[in-house]
Amino acid sequence: MGNESSRADRKFRVAVLGATGAVGRKMLDVLVERRFPVSEVRALASPKSAGVSIPFAGGSLTVAPVTEAAFEGVDVALFSAGSGPSRAWGPIAASKGAIVIDNSAAWRMDAEVPLCVPEVNLAAARERPRGIVANPNCSTIQMLVALAPIHRVARIRRIVVSTYQAISGAGAQAVDHFRAQSRAFAASEAMPEGPIAKQLAGNLLMEWKRDASVGYQEEELKMIHETRKILGDPEIRISPTTVRVPVINGHSESIAIELERPMTASEARAILEKAPGLRVMDDFAAGLYPTPLDCDDRDEVLVGRIREDLGNPGGLMLWVVGDNLRKGAATNAIQIAEGLLLG
Amino acid sequence: MGNESSRADRKFRVAVLGATGAVGRKMLDVLVERRFPVSEVRALASPKSAGVSIPFAGGSLTVAPVTEAAFEGVDVALFSAGSGPSRAWGPIAASKGAIVIDNSAAWRMDAEVPLCVPEVNLAAARERPRGIVANPNCSTIQMLVALAPIHRVARIRRIVVSTYQAISGAGAQAVDHFRAQSRAFAASEAMPEGPIAKQLAGNLLMEWKRDASVGYQEEELKMIHETRKILGDPEIRISPTTVRVPVINGHSESIAIELERPMTASEARAILEKAPGLRVMDDFAAGLYPTPLDCDDRDEVLVGRIREDLGNPGGLMLWVVGDNLRKGAATNAIQIAEGLLLG
Repeated sequence: MGNESSRADRKFRVAVLGATGAVGRKMLDVLVERRFPVSEVRALASPKSAGVSIPFAGGSLTVAPVTEAAFEGVDVALFSAGSGPSRAWGPIAASKGAIVIDNSAAWRMDAEVPLCVPEVNLAAARERPRGIVANPNCSTIQMLVALAPIHRVARIRRIVVSTYQAISGAGAQAVDHFRAQSRAFAASEAMPEGPIAKQLAGNLLMEWKRDASVGYQEEELKMIHETRKILGDPEIRISPTTVRVPVINGHSESIAIELERPMTASEARAILEKAPGLRVMDDFAAGLYPTPLDCDDRDEVLVGRIREDLGNPGGLMLWVVGDNLRKGAATNAIQIAEGLLLG
Repeated sequence: MGNESSRADRKFRVAVLGATGAVGRKMLDVLVERRFPVSEVRALASPKSAGVSIPFAGGSLTVAPVTEAAFEGVDVALFSAGSGPSRAWGPIAASKGAIVIDNSAAWRMDAEVPLCVPEVNLAAARERPRGIVANPNCSTIQMLVALAPIHRVARIRRIVVSTYQAISGAGAQAVDHFRAQSRAFAASEAMPEGPIAKQLAGNLLMEWKRDASVGYQEEELKMIHETRKILGDPEIRISPTTVRVPVINGHSESIAIELERPMTASEARAILEKAPGLRVMDDFAAGLYPTPLDCDDRDEVLVGRIREDLGNPGGLMLWVVGDNLRKGAATNAIQIAEGLLLG
């Protein structure tokens, strides 16, 4: 941890692996917007994307192929290239002294890799035996930004969550395909072929990888296991259903929670209004609640519909919306780096 | 009840009030498709729609203005013109001897009006002191077609439900507006004005009437109160969140249930495979689950993702999809008439 420093003038060498992807590009944007102090940014990708030019800070970066040498001297390596590259390159980048912050699922459940939402458990990221910190799944991050402050006050025993997830989480090519599907849908024409397995425009899908042994999608299982690890609470029970909706960007979640002791909606609202990373958008009488369009390109998680659960006295229900490419991926990763290096 | 008869050759005079609306037109279609034995069909609407010609059985009907005389000799009056006309004309049509089957919310919670899903509680519709039978809310109907068979076996104590509701439930003009929004969305143009309050294309909305005293939308409260009435179980607890999704037709529901005694997914699947009005579409390993596109223009409710609740041992989760204009409205109303007159 020799490269952790609070010196205000220190600048860092940052590598972004998967720089041409939707999250990789967003990481580059967020580095600039948040004025992360960089001395150099290396845009890395697989050899087939090498040489591509991508925008950065008003100029551009040329994508270099990922190699062992590419991590020499790097302070922070932000990974968003999928599990295979993360598994292969994570230990190599860490061996060069970089703090690896990995957005894939490769390392999340590794006992020696902390899984971090900075608002919830930044301290966990300070111990990283492998040199790697894992960024949680997008759906888990936004849920826990909203629920952890309540959990600390009145211990959540169970979460029932149904998601309404945008296509941007499936990558830039899926977004392009969804836009093409949307044009065909609007024109009542046949759906074009592409990476989305079925028609999403005007429809709902559940096409994540399946674990048939339990009847759950991996996206659902991630919400269970990652929540337990991040909250450090192996007993918290989670009932998840993950659904893809015809929305470009911004995941929404309908959540019911059961608590160790009763909490009113007004107590919850007061807790959430003071919580970091969260914006309460909740004036029900006036019709104010967050939608995916409201969260697009915002770093905060939005929460509304905070109300007492009519089906479970003492419990609560709420509606949580977040930009899955930002707080669900790029912003969270960079906030981890900020917390470790600038905190 | 003198007009209930099981004589196979009997034919009935049917009036449809609200015949020009989305549900009214679907009622006319469903009467034909299900070969409901009609001697005459009267298409009725407010004076401003009178004279309009609408398709029926390969020919057409001319819409007549609703008047007291229009109900003379009518055996079955199917109402789908909104609560105001239902409140005004229901007792008049009933006084003429018609069985009034009302799709509005006007009479649903009236203690002297049965609220009926034929697969669940047809018997309740045989007692109708006011001559009126109420058709439940679309979201409630499809939920109970799927849940009532389980409730009978292992008493459901609590239902947590999040809906993914199509715009067709808001009427034909809202559908037209959504199509216009979808064209603008696909072309990245500004949203056109229309009856939908905000942008639904590429977004999610919760724009039902609000009851600010409890923080719930009326659509959510309907699911609570109607479920209790239909199941005859005032103690069943319901935690609902209703959401409009950018889908033209077909409501979907993500449901978690808590039971009086544990039930496995395979026991539930066996019960649901034998249940009336339901089609199990559930081969998780093969990626089979119902979507809104699958239910469009089908009378059955579709159910999939039947699985044990990892967050509540002994409980179950499932995904229920139904055509909200058919089983959620028109089909259910005509099935009530069939049950009472042809059963």
